[in-house]
Amino acid sequence: MKICKVVGKVWATRKHACLHGKKLLLVQPIDIETSEKKGQIVMAVDLVDAGQDDTVLVNDEGNSARGMLENPVAGIRTVVCGIIDELTISGKF
Amino acid sequence: MKICKVVGKVWATRKHACLHGKKLLLVQPIDIETSEKKGQIVMAVDLVDAGQDDTVLVNDEGNSARGMLENPVAGIRTVVCGIIDELTISGKF
Amino acid sequence: MKICKVVGKVWATRKHACLHGKKLLLVQPIDIETSEKKGQIVMAVDLVDAGQDDTVLVNDEGNSARGMLENPVAGIRTVVCGIIDELTISGKF
Amino acid sequence: MKICKVVGKVWATRKHACLHGKKLLLVQPIDIETSEKKGQIVMAVDLVDAGQDDTVLVNDEGNSARGMLENPVAGIRTVVCGIIDELTISGKF
Amino acid sequence: MKICKVVGKVWATRKHACLHGKKLLLVQPIDIETSEKKGQIVMAVDLVDAGQDDTVLVNDEGNSARGMLENPVAGIRTVVCGIIDELTISGKF
Repeated sequence: MKICKVVGKVWATRKHACLHGKKLLLVQPIDIETSEKKGQIVMAVDLVDAGQDDTVLVNDEGNSARGMLENPVAGIRTVVCGIIDELTISGKF
Repeated sequence: MKICKVVGKVWATRKHACLHGKKLLLVQPIDIETSEKKGQIVMAVDLVDAGQDDTVLVNDEGNSARGMLENPVAGIRTVVCGIIDELTISGKF
Repeated sequence: MKICKVVGKVWATRKHACLHGKKLLLVQPIDIETSEKKGQIVMAVDLVDAGQDDTVLVNDEGNSARGMLENPVAGIRTVVCGIIDELTISGKF
Repeated sequence: MKICKVVGKVWATRKHACLHGKKLLLVQPIDIETSEKKGQIVMAVDLVDAGQDDTVLVNDEGNSARGMLENPVAGIRTVVCGIIDELTISGKF
Repeated sequence: MKICKVVGKVWATRKHACLHGKKLLLVQPIDIETSEKKGQIVMAVDLVDAGQDDTVLVNDEGNSARGMLENPVAGIRTVVCGIIDELTISGKF
């Protein structure tokens, strides 16, 4: 599960019914050591009401998405499922 | 789920029965920051009647594809499931 | 789903029972813009009686493979499921 | 399944219910030949009470995670499922 | 499904119950054109009693692993499921 930044939004009128009424975000992985965005921007369905520039937890696996959406046939693979408050790297815990 | 461009089409006479009657598109991911096509071209089954050069939403996961096709045993992993009208990057929303 | 070339074959006497009697091909992705083979060679189970140097459609997802094999517990992830007759890139259709 | 090092921890107040009460670790793959950390840091749910700097076994597949959590709808893909005591490379066994 | 070489072994005392009693191998993909080991070493559960330096067939998909292990909730993604006797590249067959 990846730590990403919300970088944008997508509009699509013609789409499969399972995507109707969903907020479609663009998210980009961040390099946690430098906090810089890096890597491919993908589309994720928002489950936690995330906003622009939020640091989020992204799960890119369809069965996870269907479990969280409580829809066993939804054609959705990638979801935003948490908003990160804080990260610690190499600190004691 | 990836944002791609439709770049071509595939014809295959000899194929598994689950692919019969399907429109087989070639799609290539786009780098959203530059709008340029970049990365490996793959084959995706069209679910939304997409056309050449359309910017589309691609879901590369078999259980999603089977859910949208309403066929629990289809041997299909990659589908075009939306046509993108508009993208916003780093704008407020 | 990837467009590949059949580049070889594998023999394995000691293997899991679900692989018995299957033709095990080596396939390599092709760069569709240049038609050159490029990237990692993998092993795929043949479902369409493909031959050496055929351009084929490869599905690298286990649930797809099990659906096409009509065997819900087969330990097979990658299959050759179509033989490509023709590709069009950036042409009108 | 990958050999990783625990490099940090994540706090997220707003998240999907299936993540409540879980310890969320940051893990990074290690290059086994050199023992150096290398590659993308990801978030994994801890199942074995791992600590900072432990070398761990990470399984990045949702159905595995749900099986080990005994929760068939959990939206969790990546878990820490073992703590490595010892590795042998290219030795006889 | 990948062609790999067995390069080592892993010991882990503290691990999820589904891994108890399993032989945990380290495997590395081989570049079939040059026979050299290349790419990330991963951990795979041995199903065919493979030994050090064997060339093996590796399936990196959880549902395949669970089918072959006949355990529908095992948290195992990667298995060694065949020992390669011979490979032919670009020869006639």
